[in-house]
Amino acid sequence: MDPDHETLTIGIDLGATSVRVAAYSPPAGLLETSAFLTRISAGPLAIVDDICRNVCRLLEIHGRTRPCAGIGVGSPGPLELPAGRLHAPPNLPGWNNFPLLDELQSRLPHPISLDGDARVAALAEYALGSGKEFAVDSLCMLTLGTGVGSGIILNGRIWHGASGMAAESGHLTIDPEGPPCGCGNAGCLEAYASGTAIAKAAERLFAGGLSPSAHLDPASPLTAANLALAARAGDPHARGVYAAAGRALGIALADLINMLNLPLYVVGGGVAQSWDLLSAPLFAELHRRSYVYRLTTSGGAALQAIPGGTRVMPARLGPEAGLLGACILPLHVPPAVGPEPSGACQASRQSALH
Amino acid sequence: MDPDHETLTIGIDLGATSVRVAAYSPPAGLLETSAFLTRISAGPLAIVDDICRNVCRLLEIHGRTRPCAGIGVGSPGPLELPAGRLHAPPNLPGWNNFPLLDELQSRLPHPISLDGDARVAALAEYALGSGKEFAVDSLCMLTLGTGVGSGIILNGRIWHGASGMAAESGHLTIDPEGPPCGCGNAGCLEAYASGTAIAKAAERLFAGGLSPSAHLDPASPLTAANLALAARAGDPHARGVYAAAGRALGIALADLINMLNLPLYVVGGGVAQSWDLLSAPLFAELHRRSYVYRLTTSGGAALQAIPGGTRVMPARLGPEAGLLGACILPLHVPPAVGPEPSGACQASRQSALH
Repeated sequence: MDPDHETLTIGIDLGATSVRVAAYSPPAGLLETSAFLTRISAGPLAIVDDICRNVCRLLEIHGRTRPCAGIGVGSPGPLELPAGRLHAPPNLPGWNNFPLLDELQSRLPHPISLDGDARVAALAEYALGSGKEFAVDSLCMLTLGTGVGSGIILNGRIWHGASGMAAESGHLTIDPEGPPCGCGNAGCLEAYASGTAIAKAAERLFAGGLSPSAHLDPASPLTAANLALAARAGDPHARGVYAAAGRALGIALADLINMLNLPLYVVGGGVAQSWDLLSAPLFAELHRRSYVYRLTTSGGAALQAIPGGTRVMPARLGPEAGLLGACILPLHVPPAVGPEPSGACQASRQSALH
Repeated sequence: MDPDHETLTIGIDLGATSVRVAAYSPPAGLLETSAFLTRISAGPLAIVDDICRNVCRLLEIHGRTRPCAGIGVGSPGPLELPAGRLHAPPNLPGWNNFPLLDELQSRLPHPISLDGDARVAALAEYALGSGKEFAVDSLCMLTLGTGVGSGIILNGRIWHGASGMAAESGHLTIDPEGPPCGCGNAGCLEAYASGTAIAKAAERLFAGGLSPSAHLDPASPLTAANLALAARAGDPHARGVYAAAGRALGIALADLINMLNLPLYVVGGGVAQSWDLLSAPLFAELHRRSYVYRLTTSGGAALQAIPGGTRVMPARLGPEAGLLGACILPLHVPPAVGPEPSGACQASRQSALH
């Protein structure tokens, strides 16, 4: 009998809007998931308590017959590793210097593996999605959501860099004189291709005097999703905003291919559902800006010459990528060297911070 | 007795202008070097013959008492690995599809390790230069010469990517609307920070009507080296050209730090000798464009918070980096799986191409 049949892991996908927690076993997949709103105003310790209460419940239900191999967490960044400490995360106000790993580990009875949310999603895409489908050993995944995150898997392992801050692809410079980015810089990928940036680009257009066409319902909020509907219906401004996002993605992907020459680059997250609007300008820039891409792309004239083609495609896994990645993280990486697990489940404790 | 004392390697640094060949042993360093002009017009097979004649001579002199551990080669790119085949190298006309590894291996009696010239220089800087000094396991080195090459060392090994074409940092996009690059694209790093680009930028200025100041000798050719002299003497246009190169380097390094978060980034090659002219705009862009750099830089407010600082500095090894890297390549990487070594030294042979 495959010992995996008995293994349980717990995955935690910590988001700025909601938290998802799941029990997982390799053969069955997600056994049970729960989701709850992130109570930002209550502060990080209250949210950690919410998380641990859910983890303990899942452990009680699913851990009776299965040994738990560990607990995986995907967290927003910037995240210092292996310490597991957050540094002024833009979407989690009040979490600066919060020792997330220590706080979780002091309440939970199994070793915790913690990593960045976009890196954990890339791990899922590698192990369970397109990476598995094409049997590659390395990939890079961009996740286009509120911001733009990414994860780099090299030879089957998440690449962290010297201080756990690698793969900040959202802050690759696309145009030094481009639109402002939340990081304080201008012209970053995130300032073009995140959901937020797509909505803001349309706002700027209309604030500048352009009139939305009949395809944009004036009663609906100006979101990336609504703009995609309008673009598909023919709205030229919405199409232009998506074309600019696609061009920026193409420039960033050309940089990533020129630098790393990985066999597979995938684009996931909510905005990637508009691949139909992004892909033509994206591939046009890739062809222009990466001779590595041109030389290694199947279908090109050089197909026979260079083995190891470069694939660029939408992610196979949908919105569950982050949660699945958290679930499989303990199976792929040893837990960070940190505090001893708590002896038993503790949904809350008197924190060392207080 | 250290067995290394007896080991010999041969290094070959194949350049578009000249070829250097050396005998090397780890404790003594370079035992003997020879250099000769690259006879481009004679074609690749004649140049391979020139190389092999020199290698055989060095093997005869230095290989009598020392077992040869292998022959290392640094070659211009684009280079397909592990096949060891060149793809339309811009500085070696007539070498398209040339099977360099096969041609060398069929003439030489020891296993050959072949890699890109900038990658081999990065290996030398890692093992013998700044990488050794700071005891890092990973680094990225940019080499600013006729073009801009780079090498990425991850966990002590050269990163090649899926088809041996990684680390083409010279073609990172700095500004999508920037000056034309030899690769067919516009706004690449190489179009700002190579020696060629620096000379061309000054040419464009003066062709556009600006007058060179008294600091630029009208009788001297408009080279990067002469422009550096003029800039140091106070010529504002020459200073501006170097400032633009420094800014482009800062943007590229910010991208590389945001992506890989390595502990060390070094800049070498001839143009890096003008570090005094490049560094201020370079670091200004780094600070603006990489919060990973800001968070991980010693001296910053976050010094205590994040271990694993990011160093950016000129390379420690000078113009010998490429030759030294070729010499140590056989000691660091196993030779590519290729043809069997020739039974004995053959300075030339009837090539399979003919």
